[in-house]
Amino acid sequence: MAATMRALVIKEIGAVEVVEKPIPEPGPEEAVVRTTAALICTSDVHTVKGALPVPFGRTLGHESVGVIHSLGSAVTGFQEGQRVAVNAVTPCYRCSYCQRGFTSQCGGPLGGYKYTVQTDGNMAEYFVVPAAAANLAPIPDNLPDESAVYACDMLSTGFMGAEHAYLQFGDTVAIFAQGPVGLSATIGANLMGAGRIFAVESRPERQELARRFGADEIIDFSNGDPVQQILDLTDGAGVDAAIEAFGFPQTFEACVRVTKAGGRVSNIGYHGENPNPLQLPLDAFGLGMNDKAIHTGLCPGGSERMERIFRLLQSGRVDPTPMTTHTFGFDDVEKAFALMTSKEDNIIKPLITF
Amino acid sequence: MAATMRALVIKEIGAVEVVEKPIPEPGPEEAVVRTTAALICTSDVHTVKGALPVPFGRTLGHESVGVIHSLGSAVTGFQEGQRVAVNAVTPCYRCSYCQRGFTSQCGGPLGGYKYTVQTDGNMAEYFVVPAAAANLAPIPDNLPDESAVYACDMLSTGFMGAEHAYLQFGDTVAIFAQGPVGLSATIGANLMGAGRIFAVESRPERQELARRFGADEIIDFSNGDPVQQILDLTDGAGVDAAIEAFGFPQTFEACVRVTKAGGRVSNIGYHGENPNPLQLPLDAFGLGMNDKAIHTGLCPGGSERMERIFRLLQSGRVDPTPMTTHTFGFDDVEKAFALMTSKEDNIIKPLITF
Amino acid sequence: MAATMRALVIKEIGAVEVVEKPIPEPGPEEAVVRTTAALICTSDVHTVKGALPVPFGRTLGHESVGVIHSLGSAVTGFQEGQRVAVNAVTPCYRCSYCQRGFTSQCGGPLGGYKYTVQTDGNMAEYFVVPAAAANLAPIPDNLPDESAVYACDMLSTGFMGAEHAYLQFGDTVAIFAQGPVGLSATIGANLMGAGRIFAVESRPERQELARRFGADEIIDFSNGDPVQQILDLTDGAGVDAAIEAFGFPQTFEACVRVTKAGGRVSNIGYHGENPNPLQLPLDAFGLGMNDKAIHTGLCPGGSERMERIFRLLQSGRVDPTPMTTHTFGFDDVEKAFALMTSKEDNIIKPLITF
Amino acid sequence: MAATMRALVIKEIGAVEVVEKPIPEPGPEEAVVRTTAALICTSDVHTVKGALPVPFGRTLGHESVGVIHSLGSAVTGFQEGQRVAVNAVTPCYRCSYCQRGFTSQCGGPLGGYKYTVQTDGNMAEYFVVPAAAANLAPIPDNLPDESAVYACDMLSTGFMGAEHAYLQFGDTVAIFAQGPVGLSATIGANLMGAGRIFAVESRPERQELARRFGADEIIDFSNGDPVQQILDLTDGAGVDAAIEAFGFPQTFEACVRVTKAGGRVSNIGYHGENPNPLQLPLDAFGLGMNDKAIHTGLCPGGSERMERIFRLLQSGRVDPTPMTTHTFGFDDVEKAFALMTSKEDNIIKPLITF
Repeated sequence: MAATMRALVIKEIGAVEVVEKPIPEPGPEEAVVRTTAALICTSDVHTVKGALPVPFGRTLGHESVGVIHSLGSAVTGFQEGQRVAVNAVTPCYRCSYCQRGFTSQCGGPLGGYKYTVQTDGNMAEYFVVPAAAANLAPIPDNLPDESAVYACDMLSTGFMGAEHAYLQFGDTVAIFAQGPVGLSATIGANLMGAGRIFAVESRPERQELARRFGADEIIDFSNGDPVQQILDLTDGAGVDAAIEAFGFPQTFEACVRVTKAGGRVSNIGYHGENPNPLQLPLDAFGLGMNDKAIHTGLCPGGSERMERIFRLLQSGRVDPTPMTTHTFGFDDVEKAFALMTSKEDNIIKPLITF
Repeated sequence: MAATMRALVIKEIGAVEVVEKPIPEPGPEEAVVRTTAALICTSDVHTVKGALPVPFGRTLGHESVGVIHSLGSAVTGFQEGQRVAVNAVTPCYRCSYCQRGFTSQCGGPLGGYKYTVQTDGNMAEYFVVPAAAANLAPIPDNLPDESAVYACDMLSTGFMGAEHAYLQFGDTVAIFAQGPVGLSATIGANLMGAGRIFAVESRPERQELARRFGADEIIDFSNGDPVQQILDLTDGAGVDAAIEAFGFPQTFEACVRVTKAGGRVSNIGYHGENPNPLQLPLDAFGLGMNDKAIHTGLCPGGSERMERIFRLLQSGRVDPTPMTTHTFGFDDVEKAFALMTSKEDNIIKPLITF
Repeated sequence: MAATMRALVIKEIGAVEVVEKPIPEPGPEEAVVRTTAALICTSDVHTVKGALPVPFGRTLGHESVGVIHSLGSAVTGFQEGQRVAVNAVTPCYRCSYCQRGFTSQCGGPLGGYKYTVQTDGNMAEYFVVPAAAANLAPIPDNLPDESAVYACDMLSTGFMGAEHAYLQFGDTVAIFAQGPVGLSATIGANLMGAGRIFAVESRPERQELARRFGADEIIDFSNGDPVQQILDLTDGAGVDAAIEAFGFPQTFEACVRVTKAGGRVSNIGYHGENPNPLQLPLDAFGLGMNDKAIHTGLCPGGSERMERIFRLLQSGRVDPTPMTTHTFGFDDVEKAFALMTSKEDNIIKPLITF
Repeated sequence: MAATMRALVIKEIGAVEVVEKPIPEPGPEEAVVRTTAALICTSDVHTVKGALPVPFGRTLGHESVGVIHSLGSAVTGFQEGQRVAVNAVTPCYRCSYCQRGFTSQCGGPLGGYKYTVQTDGNMAEYFVVPAAAANLAPIPDNLPDESAVYACDMLSTGFMGAEHAYLQFGDTVAIFAQGPVGLSATIGANLMGAGRIFAVESRPERQELARRFGADEIIDFSNGDPVQQILDLTDGAGVDAAIEAFGFPQTFEACVRVTKAGGRVSNIGYHGENPNPLQLPLDAFGLGMNDKAIHTGLCPGGSERMERIFRLLQSGRVDPTPMTTHTFGFDDVEKAFALMTSKEDNIIKPLITF
C-alpha cells in the first residue's frame, strides 16, 4: 500500500479542501521533494475562482521549498536530503520556446506554468519536480526556508518586472500597486539602479513596506489621479518606465500615460479578471510613434535564476521576509487560503510551514 | 529685395497651393539646401486633411535632397555645392531625449519631426536644415538623387520597423500593408535576416513589389482573415514578429494575434486617423503574460543613419526606386499631390524633380 | 550478436582509420541516427594532429545528418525514419551555463562540444544524439541533405561570427580568411544587413566564393598589409566590425587594428595552433578606452537555431553548397580526410555520402 | 583690459604651476562657468608625467562644478548664475561617433576627452563648456557641490565599468583595484544588482571604503594570487564579470583568468603607463571560443547621464563623498597636486574649493 500525504486541492469553484493523495514517485528525469515551507499565491485564489480551467481535485500551490525525497534514475548532481527550492515555472528547457529563452512560454503560451494548471501543484507534503536537472535549486546552508521561498515566484516575477522595464541607472519608474508582486518589483527596481521610484498604493501597511523596499515616493490614488500626481512631481515629464502590477485596464492605461516618449511599460499584472480588451489611448501612445515599448511576461523559470536570487538574499541586499504577514502550519492551510481570498487582516503573504 | 522661391504649402484644410516665399537664410548652426529631388509622403496628405494643427501657408514636405546653397557661420566640414540628403527627422542632438537615443522624440513626443509641424517643410526650391552638422548627409558621387531620396524617410522608417521587430536570423515575420512604408519594412526585414516574410496586401501591383523586395508569401486579406491564413501557413504557430504599417486598429490587433508567445509587434503605422484607442485582445495578449512586446517609433533622425543606408544603396543590396511609380516636375507638384491623395493610378511614390 | 557499423576514428596522432564498432543504443533521453551525409571539419584535422587530448579509437566527426534509427524511451515528438540534422554542439540544455544561454559552454568551457572530445563523434554510419528533444532538428522535406548538413556547424558558427559583430544595417565589416567558416561568416554578415564587406583572402577560388556570398571587396594580403588596404579604402576610418576566422595572432591583432573606435571584434578562429598569448596592441586598443569590444564564441547548439537556418536555406536566401568542392562516398572517407589535411586541390569542404 | 583668472597648468614635464589667464569668452554654442569646486584626477598626474602630448601652459583639470558666468548667443534653456556640473567628456553630440552613441569617441578615438588634451581644462577659476546645450548639467538645489562633482568623471566612469560588465541581478563580479575609479565601479556594480562583489585591494583604507560601497569580500593580493583566491571562494567557478580598474597587464590578464566561460571583462583602467601590448592567455581565453567578451571604454559624456547620477545622489542611494580624503582651497592646489602625485597620506581624492 502506497504511503500517502496531505495536499490542498481545488474542491469546486470557490472551494478548497485538504485531501489524502499517494506520495508521488519520480519519473526518470524528475525528483520528488518533501515540502518544508510554502507561500500561498493570489494566482491560486484566481484559479479557485474559476479563472483557469482546472479539474477538481488538482493540488494547488507553486511556491514551495523542501528537501529532496527521491530522485529519478536519470538525475545526477543532487542528493536525497538536500535542501532545494523550486521555481513556480518549471520549463522542459528543451522545446523551441525554451531554447529561445522564453522559459515561461515552454511549449506554448504560459506553458511553463505547469503546477496546478497542467499537473498537481506543490501545496502538499510532497511534490514532483519535472526536468529536475534544471529546476532544482539547492538552498545555501545559511539561507532559511522562509527567505528562500520568496525566490520561487515573488522575487523572480517582481525582478522580471524590473528587467522588462529596461532600466538604466538613475531612471525614474512608477510601480502600480504594492501587493506582493508589486512590492517585489519595487525591490527589483531599486536593486537594478532606479533613481527615483514612485509606488502607487493606498493601503498604509503596503505603503510602509514599499518605502522600506526602496520606494522614494508613495502615490496614494485615493488622493487623486496617480498619473497626474506623478506628472506634477516630475515637472510634467513623466517617468522613464512604469510597471503594472495590479492587473486592471485602468492601471495598464495609466502606465502608458505616465511614461515619457521612449518609455517602457512592463506588465506583470494578471489581466484575466476583467473580460474587456486592454486599451492604448492614442495620445499617450503617440499615435503609435512615440518610441514607447510594452513588455509582458510571466515568472521566468529554472534554477539558475533562483541561484542568483539566493546570492542577493545571502548577502543581505534583499530581504523579502517583511512581506510575510502571517504564518500557519499546514494543518491550518485552509484558514490561510480563506484569508488570502478575503485579503483581510492586512495580509500580504501567508507562510505555510510543514 | 530678397530673392524668392516657390514652395508647396497647405492653403486650408483639404487644399494645397504653390506660393512664392523668400529664399531662407541659415542661422549659425543651419544650412540652406537647394532642392533637386523630393518625394511626396502620405503624412503630408494626412496633414492637409487636418490631422495635425499646422498654420495655413506652412510649407509641406520632408523627403528632399539637393545641393548646399549656403552654410551657417558655425557649420564646418561641408561645402556649398555639395550634394546632400536630409532626414525627415532633424533632431537637435543635444536635448535629453536625443542624448538617450530617441532622436525622433527630440525635446518631447514626436518632436524630432520638425518640417511642416514646427517649421517650413522642404517641398520647396530651397529649405533650411537645422543642426546642420548632424543632419546633412553627403550623397556619394555615384548615387543618384532618385535613389538617395528614399533614405530621407521611407527606408529609415521601414528599417526602424524591422529593427523594432528585433529579428534573429531566420525568424518569421508578417508585415501588414505594403504601401511605401510597409514595402520599406519588407526590404528591411529581408535585409536584416528574416527567414520567411508574409506580406499582407491585396493590391496586385503592391503584391508584386513586395515579392520583389523579399516577401516569401503574399497574404491577400480579400481572401479571408490574414491572421488565420498565416496561422494556417505556419502550422498554427504564428510568427516571431509582426510589423504594423497600415495604421488601423484591426491591423494592430492582427499583429498581436498573429505573433507567437515571445513575439514582437513593431508599429510604424500612423494611428491618427481613427479616434478610438487601440485594443489589446486579452487572449492574444496572454492576459499580459505571454512575453510579447510592442514597440512604437517614428523615423529616427540624423545623418549617420542615412550614411549607412547609402552604403546599402551603393552596393546594390537595396534598390527602392521601383517604388517610384510616377515622376513630376515641380511645376506639376499640385497634380502629384492630388494623385497621392486619391491614391489613383496605382500610385506608390511620386518623385518630384526640380 | 550486436550489429556493427563503420566509423572513422583517430588511430594515433596523425593517423585515422575506419573501424567496425557496435551500432549504439540510445539512452532514455537520447536518439540514434543513421547517417546519410556528413562534412569533414578542419577541427577534426586539428584533433588528429593532437590539439585536443582524445583517446585513440574515438570516432571523429560532428557535422552529420541522417534519419532517426531509434529513440530513447523518454523522447517524444519524433518518429523513427524521420530526417534530422544534429548540431555539432549538443548541449544538455539544463545546466547553469545552458540556462544562461551559453549552450556551447554546457557544463563548463567549450563543454557543449561533445562529439569526439567527450564521446564518439558522428563520422560513422550511426551515431548517438544526447538530449535528443533539444538536439534533433527535423529537416524539411524539400531541403536536401547536402544543403542541410551545412547547418550543423559551418553556418551556425559563421552566423555566430556575424551575431557577435553586433552589426547595424549598413555597417562596414572585415572578415579575415575565407575558409569555410570565414565564408559562412561572409554569408552571415551579408544576411544580417552589413553594408560593405571586406573579405581578406589570397586564394582565388576562395575569393570568388566570397564575392558570390556577398563580399563587396576582396583584400588580398599577398598585396600588402590588409589593415592598411582597408584603411585606404575607407578614407582612414576603418570598419565597424571585424571577424577573425583564421586563428592566428596576426589576424587577431589585425582585427583590433582595423576597427574604428567603438568597433567590435568577433572571434571565431580557433587559436589552439599557436602557443603564444594573443596580443592587444595598446594604440589600436585605445589604451583600453576606445569603446572597442571583443567577443569570442563557439558554435551555439540546439535545434531551434538550426530550424531558423533551414528557413534561410528553404527560401533560397542562403545557399552554402558551392562550398562543397569535393564529394566522396564513406568508403573513401580516409582519402577525403587526407585531402582536408593537405588542403590540396583547392578543397574547401568535402561532403561524405553514406 | 581683459579680466584675468588663475589656472593650474602644466609647466613642463613633471611640473605644474598656477598662472594668470584671461577669463574666457564663450562662442555662440558655448558657456563659461565660474568654478566653485573641483577634484584632481590621476589622469592629470599621467598627463604631467608626459603620457599625453600636451603643450606646456595648457590648463589641467576636467572634474569641476560651478555657476554659469556667461552663455553663448545660441544657448537657450539656461540662466547665468545657475549651478551646473560639466562632464569630463564634452562631446559635440553631432558627429558620426556621437550619433552612434560613442560620445567619448567624439570625432575619433578618445576624442570626447577635450579638456587639457585638446583645449584648456577646468582646474581654473573659469572655464569654457563646448556644446553647452548638451554638456551643462544643472545641479539640483539640495545637492551640494562636493557630492555633485563626483558625477563629472568618477561615478560616470565607474558606472560605465559596471555597465560594460553587463550584469544580471545576482551576478558575481570581481573589481581589480579600489582607487577612486575602482571604488566607483564597486558603487556601480552594487547599484546595478550584483549579487557578490570581490574587491581586489591591499591598502586598508581603500578596503574599508570598498566594503562601505558594497564589496562583499576583499581580496588582498598581498596574500597571494587574487585569481586563485577568488576561484577558491567560488568553488572553482570564477565570476560572471570582472572590472579592470588598475591599468596594468597583470590585472587585465587576471580579469580574463578569473571570469567563467561566458564572462565579461570590462576595462576602465588606463593602459598608457606600460609600453607592452596586453596579453590574452590562450587557456583562459578558451582558445578564442569560450564566449568571453571584453569591453573597453572612457567616461561617457553629456548632461543626461549626469542628471541620472544626480537622482542617485539626491535619493541617498549613492554617496561618493567618503572618497574625499582631503580638501584644499585653490590657493593650495599645487600642494594638492603634489599629494595626488605621491599618493601619500592615504589620499584618494582631493577636493579643491574656490
